[in-house]
Amino acid sequence: MSGGVVVGVDIGGTKVLAGVVNDDGMVRRTALRTTPGRRVVASQVEDALVAAVLDAAAGRPLAGVGVAAAGFVDSAGERVMFAPHLPWQGEPLRDQLKERLGCPVGLDNDANCAALAEAHHGAARGAVSAIVITMGTGIGGAVLIGGRVIRGANGMAGEFGHMQVVPDGQACECGRRGCWEQYSSGNALVRNARALMVDQPSVLVEMSGGAPEHVTGPMVTSAAEQGDLVARQAFASVGGWLGVGTANLVAALDPEVVVIGGGVSAAGDRLLDPARAALRRTLVGAEHRVVPPLVAAELGPQAGMIGAALLVSGAQVRR
Amino acid sequence: MSGGVVVGVDIGGTKVLAGVVNDDGMVRRTALRTTPGRRVVASQVEDALVAAVLDAAAGRPLAGVGVAAAGFVDSAGERVMFAPHLPWQGEPLRDQLKERLGCPVGLDNDANCAALAEAHHGAARGAVSAIVITMGTGIGGAVLIGGRVIRGANGMAGEFGHMQVVPDGQACECGRRGCWEQYSSGNALVRNARALMVDQPSVLVEMSGGAPEHVTGPMVTSAAEQGDLVARQAFASVGGWLGVGTANLVAALDPEVVVIGGGVSAAGDRLLDPARAALRRTLVGAEHRVVPPLVAAELGPQAGMIGAALLVSGAQVRR
Repeated sequence: MSGGVVVGVDIGGTKVLAGVVNDDGMVRRTALRTTPGRRVVASQVEDALVAAVLDAAAGRPLAGVGVAAAGFVDSAGERVMFAPHLPWQGEPLRDQLKERLGCPVGLDNDANCAALAEAHHGAARGAVSAIVITMGTGIGGAVLIGGRVIRGANGMAGEFGHMQVVPDGQACECGRRGCWEQYSSGNALVRNARALMVDQPSVLVEMSGGAPEHVTGPMVTSAAEQGDLVARQAFASVGGWLGVGTANLVAALDPEVVVIGGGVSAAGDRLLDPARAALRRTLVGAEHRVVPPLVAAELGPQAGMIGAALLVSGAQVRR
Repeated sequence: MSGGVVVGVDIGGTKVLAGVVNDDGMVRRTALRTTPGRRVVASQVEDALVAAVLDAAAGRPLAGVGVAAAGFVDSAGERVMFAPHLPWQGEPLRDQLKERLGCPVGLDNDANCAALAEAHHGAARGAVSAIVITMGTGIGGAVLIGGRVIRGANGMAGEFGHMQVVPDGQACECGRRGCWEQYSSGNALVRNARALMVDQPSVLVEMSGGAPEHVTGPMVTSAAEQGDLVARQAFASVGGWLGVGTANLVAALDPEVVVIGGGVSAAGDRLLDPARAALRRTLVGAEHRVVPPLVAAELGPQAGMIGAALLVSGAQVRR
């Protein structure tokens, strides 16, 4: 890739973040644009994307551009089939950008890109295999083998959040019941806290103006930091379920390391300690085998952009 | 591999089955030995193994020998760490056989070998990715990507049977509760039938001499074939749980096909139809995505031997 820069772009519903990324995963120069939104035509979003790329490159030739999109990307990495906050529907984005930018272009969804970044430059670097679990509103993630994301036959792998952990359990937005993310996610954290604060004293009562429905994830995190027992119980439950679901993935795949990313992971060991305990309690043969370390992601909000750059710098994602 | 034959060997607790296997997976000539058993020294088992190989080869030079062992094989494919019915404990079997046979030797556990055979010559041939679920007394299996078995960082991948499907559920021999194989396996089938026949008329009462504890898996299969409602309910339950657990694996890995092997799979659609229905009911987004076909394994009891041959004929198993 001599003679040019590799740019990674993370495009979400609100912003387009582009950056020149070195081979060692260091981000050299970034550029930010506002995402035009869903109501515009597709080409306007591409305009913003191209502008961010050229701004980041600052006149240097492009060796390649990788795109992390907040949407569903087909298994060939050519099209964005659907994106909740973007106007793309089956858009052949990879080829269109290739033509406009005149360089190789890679495309994958943001969760896969973030996982790829953690595998190469973050918490899973050096690992032969890894599972990356992204805890935000729900649970997403990726399986990495030999530094590559397992995308699945239809690009649908990594839907960890909808593995059933409780038969006939909590109703899920997906229409099923008992999905893992109903017990372990930002939403689950808030729901737990709201339910517990009804019967127990908690700083969340004051923080929310006495209205449980106004409790947010950051409030629960803040309350837990202040030692609030309701908030801490909410984290213990979400963390415990994180460990149970992780044990199922480890039984199936025996990864070298499990990385926890996403907004909820900012709580660190408050989330991870109960998860580690539950993993050890639930994983078959834990007394006699290597239990993989469960660690926090390292790259934060730049992970998607860094991983996007990897799409065009040698770490091709496998089908 | 010209100028010699490839021999696959499947070594279990009671017999050693060796066979010359062609590149197309056809078995040309087999040889059978009795396994000397656990109480002998390790070298006596190796003697039986070598004898079976030489018998199958019938004087032709050996291009390579693959061994499928009923035990736990290390992640490098060099040693049998432990085998319940064999005297090996950390035995460096691969190198010892290589020396005695004077040809390349491959080694893996029997479940991985059987899955590899299905991927190359059986029900998953041509698939980019597959999950093979082996239902016997319990549940074992393997994940295949690009024709290779994902063995895991410690050779422990594929322990599907101990994924938790019911919190605080049925006690499992592994010391945990609610493991998948407690709801979907040969043991679960028999347990279901025994419980149901207490309250309902069933030919199983006669078949077992009125003693539920004498009911066996083959009895339940035979009763179901005769239209017995208790036996059919037992299969419906085991099949339904097969579909639920399969949905979890599909959500995580999005394979092209799911293959069901092992003794219980002989029941065919009586097992697979309820599994297919439960898979479709449980899998996230089943209405909007490709739901992988759930099919019966094709190679039967020779699968382990055929897959063992693949270990030395180009389809190296990956870590």
